Amino acid sequence: MSQSVWRESFRVRSNETDIHGLARLDGLFGYFQEAAGHHARVLGVGRKSLEDQGCFWVLSRCWMQIHQYPAWGQELVVRTWPQGVERLFALRHFRFLTEDGQEFGSGISAWLILDQEKHRPMRPGPFLDGIVLPEEPLVNGDVLVKLGSISDSEELRHVSAAYSDLDVNRHVNNAAYVRWTLDSFDLEQHSRRQIESIRIDYLSETLPGESISVRGREEAAGRQDIFGLRSTTAQPVFQARITWRDRMP
Amino acid sequence: MSQSVWRESFRVRSNETDIHGLARLDGLFGYFQEAAGHHARVLGVGRKSLEDQGCFWVLSRCWMQIHQYPAWGQELVVRTWPQGVERLFALRHFRFLTEDGQEFGSGISAWLILDQEKHRPMRPGPFLDGIVLPEEPLVNGDVLVKLGSISDSEELRHVSAAYSDLDVNRHVNNAAYVRWTLDSFDLEQHSRRQIESIRIDYLSETLPGESISVRGREEAAGRQDIFGLRSTTAQPVFQARITWRDRMP
Repeated sequence: MSQSVWRESFRVRSNETDIHGLARLDGLFGYFQEAAGHHARVLGVGRKSLEDQGCFWVLSRCWMQIHQYPAWGQELVVRTWPQGVERLFALRHFRFLTEDGQEFGSGISAWLILDQEKHRPMRPGPFLDGIVLPEEPLVNGDVLVKLGSISDSEELRHVSAAYSDLDVNRHVNNAAYVRWTLDSFDLEQHSRRQIESIRIDYLSETLPGESISVRGREEAAGRQDIFGLRSTTAQPVFQARITWRDRMP
Repeated sequence: MSQSVWRESFRVRSNETDIHGLARLDGLFGYFQEAAGHHARVLGVGRKSLEDQGCFWVLSRCWMQIHQYPAWGQELVVRTWPQGVERLFALRHFRFLTEDGQEFGSGISAWLILDQEKHRPMRPGPFLDGIVLPEEPLVNGDVLVKLGSISDSEELRHVSAAYSDLDVNRHVNNAAYVRWTLDSFDLEQHSRRQIESIRIDYLSETLPGESISVRGREEAAGRQDIFGLRSTTAQPVFQARITWRDRMP
């Protein structure tokens, strides 16, 4: 059987849900990341395989939209596949489906391959040679266009990168940044409205113990830009753009 | 088939692992909690059923020991069953097994049934009438003995209860307190040693936005007491005792 499209099932666990009993966005992010990791391994370009070649994957940008959040106990399927190379980015698309095949969300991710020594991006083409792209309807969205740069914004929250945020490379894991973004809004906001889409760009590695200032700026009704800056140097570590939709009353 | 013992499988996801590539304790806590919730429902005493009777479950105390932490991608089984009533506590024991049946951890939890109106504990007996206890070897441990009270300690960390910490009842979820405890130790400690056991007592509900001071006291070599206090009133919200073991060099 061809494995050019990867399918993986997850069931929403209680500690992945929020005050509405629905899956949190950082949980959905985790499911996608998990499925992507397994698929890469099956395609021969997993963490181990790249490590043997002196390289590693990093997620550079991700965009995701959720039409309807699944509830505690619901089974869902991540459907994901590589979608070629654009400049230095290896692209990977994904869809979230309910158990009976209804799409409730989708997204596009852009990955870099860095060399272990200098953390410089390599051209991904040669690594991905021979991987057949599936004939799968493309996800309609974009991660290649640049987000606006940082200007005036107000501080929403202060976080420091702790043990539970770090992965095996001692970097803050991708889903943790999404969690930091969610946590910079109070319950009043989370009660009134729901995140419809997020675009998140990973700009710099956050090291253990580092203090990050999460800042925000409301761009337009229902659109917000979020910036994570090193407290010491104001260097950006991540940037996100979220759109909200009002909850049904 | 009798369902007096519940078995549920989990696979360790990448965002549930730590700097060693091993499952974090708060993740294992989450697996147990998930399995316990499902089992309660099957036994007719799930969240919904208690709600209909004007009550709800709260985890009051939990003790857990882990001999060997599973790694990313490993499949594990939670085996859990109710173990009768002691005073106002409904007890539930559990074991963690590898895919091929080797025990790598175990624990005992003590739950209360509170009435929705005044949050007063009810006698659990009448609710649990008719639930047959299995003939399962007991887990060897204790949650009934009281932990020592709070005295001198130093502040390790400051946290505030955010959106991602809260459950559908708008209370901080049980696994989040374990995460707060883990995060109050720096990477040097997590690199040098590993948590062998934790006993955690939930003393008071933490409300959204509340600021909690996590304080610690080293009791003896490898044993540490942790206290979570409301920053405003110094009222304790949780208390934990952990034991550490040195990692193999």
